[in-house]
Amino acid sequence: MADKSRLSLNQITTANWSVAQAVEGCARHGVPSIALWRHKIEEASLAACVRAVQDADLHVSSVCRGGMFPAATVEERRKNLEDNFRAVDEAAALHADSLVMVVGGCAGLPIEDARQMVADGVAALAPYAREHGVRIGLEPLHPMFAADRSVLVTIDQALQLAQSYDARDVGVILDTFHIWWDPRVEEEIAQSAGRIFGFHVSDWLVPLPDVLLGRGLMGDGVIDNRKLRRLVEQAGYDGPIEVEIFNRALWDAEPGAVLAQVVERFEQFV
Amino acid sequence: MADKSRLSLNQITTANWSVAQAVEGCARHGVPSIALWRHKIEEASLAACVRAVQDADLHVSSVCRGGMFPAATVEERRKNLEDNFRAVDEAAALHADSLVMVVGGCAGLPIEDARQMVADGVAALAPYAREHGVRIGLEPLHPMFAADRSVLVTIDQALQLAQSYDARDVGVILDTFHIWWDPRVEEEIAQSAGRIFGFHVSDWLVPLPDVLLGRGLMGDGVIDNRKLRRLVEQAGYDGPIEVEIFNRALWDAEPGAVLAQVVERFEQFV
Repeated sequence: MADKSRLSLNQITTANWSVAQAVEGCARHGVPSIALWRHKIEEASLAACVRAVQDADLHVSSVCRGGMFPAATVEERRKNLEDNFRAVDEAAALHADSLVMVVGGCAGLPIEDARQMVADGVAALAPYAREHGVRIGLEPLHPMFAADRSVLVTIDQALQLAQSYDARDVGVILDTFHIWWDPRVEEEIAQSAGRIFGFHVSDWLVPLPDVLLGRGLMGDGVIDNRKLRRLVEQAGYDGPIEVEIFNRALWDAEPGAVLAQVVERFEQFV
Repeated sequence: MADKSRLSLNQITTANWSVAQAVEGCARHGVPSIALWRHKIEEASLAACVRAVQDADLHVSSVCRGGMFPAATVEERRKNLEDNFRAVDEAAALHADSLVMVVGGCAGLPIEDARQMVADGVAALAPYAREHGVRIGLEPLHPMFAADRSVLVTIDQALQLAQSYDARDVGVILDTFHIWWDPRVEEEIAQSAGRIFGFHVSDWLVPLPDVLLGRGLMGDGVIDNRKLRRLVEQAGYDGPIEVEIFNRALWDAEPGAVLAQVVERFEQFV
């Protein structure tokens, strides 16, 4: 059974809560860590978020998200990079374990070009992140997001990109929703040893209600989150475990009740 | 530009047509090959289908589909296997290039068990197929189908399973919708040389309208079908190219008009 001391609420799971509400919810439910989303940070102001997590003695497991590097024009790519620098600033101010990268898709571009733009973007960002003490977490997304969200789709591919950098600076974020299907997942997790910067759990519902908003609570689908958690631990990761669920029905429910369920399912299924 | 002499209509693209109508449509539009689905064969009777394709001098590129091996009980698995024997009989009668395998998912089962049941199922089917002169085409499906349709999700994985058998008996079916996202696709296609039993094209729409029924006509999405066709040719495949599109809007359109568009897009984008 996963220890509750490792639970982190990824804020998107309770999307209707502000940062202040989510922080208060974590304190009330004994959840020691939180992952913050940038649109929520912007709503509340960075300074207010920094104070809120400090006052509640909450650990910030990640800031979501940087990335989205591929774009058709130099100008757009420069703008994206600027935005990534601001994401690093936010992750630094919040002392987040890492800045999560959803690297961007390939719609409108040959996929090889999009992949090169991702490599170039990480290369341009890495020195700035390092200077500011922020670790870059490359998150491979499920292949069904290759067109619109992430041309990075396997752990192997993320590791290959990360390995151009110091293992303290660039690593991978392993999310069970994105990696569970992979016939090589055990081997790939083992190979990630020393570079695992974050671990996320949720579940894959059958049938899948929606590509983006159809993730389930642990225990409601086919993913063996416990097995994957153990593999990640065997590879040396003992940090926070984020529960990150994009689900329309959960978003429409009362966030406090959702968080109570998250805690229960975490203890039961992770 | 792909030569129209290689075009095969996968019957699911014009799902509202019976076998007789689809055969007549192919003749009218100068499409030399067709892939038949088993529920349509059953509707028409196998003998009528055999006569129809012979009379129209149509080549049958595949019968869709066998597989669906994983099941919770021995009894269900035995029934599935029986059904696969019947699928072999149909493919043999139609002189199809291969029987396409959609191997089955893992809902209700640990994924490792489901994968073992697939291996066991192929092992049980292969001798019967060989005896009847039918080639088994293992089709890796997109990872978003791992839970409910196919635990076989990469070319590597399909090849690994195929390699226990003679290269004349068990091979792979490469469908661009299922493989385009893979960072190793070029290498994997090259490694498939000598075992490619079929090649399917369609497109990945952005945003994806539906997991099952959201495939697009070639040219409407992000897949570089021409590049993949060339890679498959470099690996030695020069057989029929099936256009296989599951799309609700196309199904609701007049099938003859859809087939005309298929021919046009095939010549333009494949």
